[in-house]
Amino acid sequence: MKPEGFHASFRCSDGCDFRAELTEVVYRCPRCQGLLEVEHDTAALAGRSAEEWKALFDGRFRMGPWPYGSGVWGKKEWVYPGLATENVVSMYEGGSPLLRLDRYAREIGLDEVWLKECGVTHTGSFKDLGMTVLVSAVKEMRSRGTRVDAVACASTGDTSAALAAYCAAAGIPSVVLLPQGKISIAQLVQPISSGALVLELDTDFDGCMKVVQELSRSPGIYLANSMNSLRIEGQKTLSIEVAQQLGWTVPDWLVIPGGNLGNASAVGRGFVMLKQLGLVDRLPRLAVAQAASANPLFRAVQRGLAAAASDMGGPAAPPFPPCPPPAPGQAHPPAPALASTRRRFTELVVEPMAAGRTAASAIRIGAPVSAKRALRALEALDGVVEQATEQELSDAAARADRAGAYADPHTGVALAVLEKLVARGTIRRGDRVVVVSTAHGLKFSDFKVGYHAGTLPEVSPRLTNPSVKVAAGLGAVMDAIAERFGGRADR
Amino acid sequence: MKPEGFHASFRCSDGCDFRAELTEVVYRCPRCQGLLEVEHDTAALAGRSAEEWKALFDGRFRMGPWPYGSGVWGKKEWVYPGLATENVVSMYEGGSPLLRLDRYAREIGLDEVWLKECGVTHTGSFKDLGMTVLVSAVKEMRSRGTRVDAVACASTGDTSAALAAYCAAAGIPSVVLLPQGKISIAQLVQPISSGALVLELDTDFDGCMKVVQELSRSPGIYLANSMNSLRIEGQKTLSIEVAQQLGWTVPDWLVIPGGNLGNASAVGRGFVMLKQLGLVDRLPRLAVAQAASANPLFRAVQRGLAAAASDMGGPAAPPFPPCPPPAPGQAHPPAPALASTRRRFTELVVEPMAAGRTAASAIRIGAPVSAKRALRALEALDGVVEQATEQELSDAAARADRAGAYADPHTGVALAVLEKLVARGTIRRGDRVVVVSTAHGLKFSDFKVGYHAGTLPEVSPRLTNPSVKVAAGLGAVMDAIAERFGGRADR
Repeated sequence: MKPEGFHASFRCSDGCDFRAELTEVVYRCPRCQGLLEVEHDTAALAGRSAEEWKALFDGRFRMGPWPYGSGVWGKKEWVYPGLATENVVSMYEGGSPLLRLDRYAREIGLDEVWLKECGVTHTGSFKDLGMTVLVSAVKEMRSRGTRVDAVACASTGDTSAALAAYCAAAGIPSVVLLPQGKISIAQLVQPISSGALVLELDTDFDGCMKVVQELSRSPGIYLANSMNSLRIEGQKTLSIEVAQQLGWTVPDWLVIPGGNLGNASAVGRGFVMLKQLGLVDRLPRLAVAQAASANPLFRAVQRGLAAAASDMGGPAAPPFPPCPPPAPGQAHPPAPALASTRRRFTELVVEPMAAGRTAASAIRIGAPVSAKRALRALEALDGVVEQATEQELSDAAARADRAGAYADPHTGVALAVLEKLVARGTIRRGDRVVVVSTAHGLKFSDFKVGYHAGTLPEVSPRLTNPSVKVAAGLGAVMDAIAERFGGRADR
Repeated sequence: MKPEGFHASFRCSDGCDFRAELTEVVYRCPRCQGLLEVEHDTAALAGRSAEEWKALFDGRFRMGPWPYGSGVWGKKEWVYPGLATENVVSMYEGGSPLLRLDRYAREIGLDEVWLKECGVTHTGSFKDLGMTVLVSAVKEMRSRGTRVDAVACASTGDTSAALAAYCAAAGIPSVVLLPQGKISIAQLVQPISSGALVLELDTDFDGCMKVVQELSRSPGIYLANSMNSLRIEGQKTLSIEVAQQLGWTVPDWLVIPGGNLGNASAVGRGFVMLKQLGLVDRLPRLAVAQAASANPLFRAVQRGLAAAASDMGGPAAPPFPPCPPPAPGQAHPPAPALASTRRRFTELVVEPMAAGRTAASAIRIGAPVSAKRALRALEALDGVVEQATEQELSDAAARADRAGAYADPHTGVALAVLEKLVARGTIRRGDRVVVVSTAHGLKFSDFKVGYHAGTLPEVSPRLTNPSVKVAAGLGAVMDAIAERFGGRADR
């Protein structure tokens, strides 16, 4: 099937009349400095029926001819239609597990909780979904003669790991900038293994960011930073996959951790596109989960709620108060979200803050780059925003682990927020909930060890599982088993 | 589609007339103490055409209704047809990436090398493929009234992580036995997080194994050890997936690391079943890769070759000597393998040895439980056996990493053996090669750090990538980039 019938380009996401080809080296609207977004030719895409799209996507999923088995490139027409197939740089990303956490669901009072494990991937985080698009675009640029000597970033975490791996696969130089003496080889072993040029600068992290910004204005250096809209197109496929794995239906709720908020906005884009093109008949509701120590979006919503209550002449309402359960046979009444007041998400202003320490280190962000894009997603998906403390996120991760999850701390934030929304009646028994897990728990062994050893800051762990010392004999072992589990009892 | 038309049971893999239902608590043939294997009703399975099977498997792959999206349970009829669907305990295993390592392939002189990343999975290793079958069988047993109070094992690694996670998902108690004081919480954080009962016995590892063996004879304790044939049925789906992801064709070669040799034998079973039922028209060749410090299978083959050469009156032949390239337009002549002498793999005896230290810790095994099964697979798939030293496995992993792989040390063993077989002419340009990666590189950060820091025993690393210290300014950074990558040059 030829992709030539479709076209996509950059446009200003804040509404300026600016457009550019996806192969241009441009990160922001040159007029308003707003972020860009990829505009698809929806009319052309709508020329193919929903059933045809489903059949195309299903036929490729995890087994199409290279690279269409990739969860991202199996949806190439919706992601980057004009890219030459030989320029796709894929590590077979996407297609990650969507697993049922039945025991956890029952424990928190729900029927159906699914974990979308975006961290079960080549480099161990959801960043692969976006990085495959970015690095493929760079390969396309280079094949057309655009000068890109290297791709650079200043991340110590998932982004540099993904950037370095995809650049290694493509044979494109990658550069990681870091503050000298503050980062260990263990933190950097992924990009080091992938052959990235790891530069230790004689400055702090802010100093590195400053140099990276300057670098991005140098000819030949392409920036793999979080404002890059190409990455959003890849991350968008996460929504499409969730629908696909649920038999082309959407869940009632999708819960996702939010830091820079690119992922939350990508998820919104994906679902809106699915509905627009008729592959699903409704949108899920979106819950964005922030760490309490890095919660600028949550604060903005709280301020909005307070102002809305004041508009209506009453005292500040508690956020999202509990609803009574619906009468038997009746649909749920609409949950009281911001949209039901006279304020809109898109009217909110997310003010920067100093982000505090959190185990969920990848979302320790005080000034989210994609705040506006995320507010649009919350508006479109009738969203809510909640926060979780260190205690809450750690216990929620441990609770899910005991049902088999092995949740990283960011997923812990999402799970803790889910538990709060259930307790509050916003999410109810009978709702089908998908929680987005953004990284593999294997990347966070220290978090797990710290929890069970009781050494995490601000956390008194409630669900530790200490080992038991026994004598080396059958009797002692049988006794320990009986003591823990009872004679024949299940836990 | 109802699975009732098909049936599978245990039988003695050494040919005794012993059979048992899959829900019986039995690990070995009670007559000869040989291992069991699962016998499928091939005649009944052949009643459905190859095209019907492909359509069924493709329609479920990564997106069938729960649990058929699992790579294992999407092939349920070929794995454990009689299992009640509600007893399936799945973490959406299988469906792992099959990615092309083009830059690595070119570097070692091949056209096509694919990495089947069985470690990109919920608990981070291929063990999930087998553990889902074992724990589901236990759930089935319990639902039928068989007493299983707990499932036990004595592994410090991937097996206990997988066992604990699947048992946590199922709500079945799991027990891990370990020598007191010799294991850190970091090594055990996966089973601890999953809520397994972790028992530290006042003995060494052999003492733990002894107690586990006694435990397995106690009523109510089921053993998740490596002789368990149910696990092989799940691991077998790895071959089926490879064929499926290659558009229902097989590669020319499959290279797999071998320790206890269950996985190598499972792979053989899978391909043989595929050919038997007509889904593919030929078998791949199999290369089993062992660490030089734990190489009982390699030694057995070398002894066999020497004996074969002596049978023929000549001096001991070098193993698998290089073949001349075929004339243009001609097929490759058969490579000289053991099968082309008068000795057969199945006549070999694998003698136990004391396994030495290796970074590939999961295959540090001197007395492989599945040696006989693996010899049958080597016989069926015209196999070869090679070994890799610490130096070879570490450099091979690093070489693949620089093309994006992030290989764990066991995958390093397979890659090093691939490189040797290419150098020797056994595997040739034009051959399509699949290398099985058995664990996620994220589980082996210490190995990666040790390689790049130069601290691995017996290894002088040749492909380290040290970071570079520079001043915090654009000029210094640009200079470092130019120095490393040249002006506009690719690496």
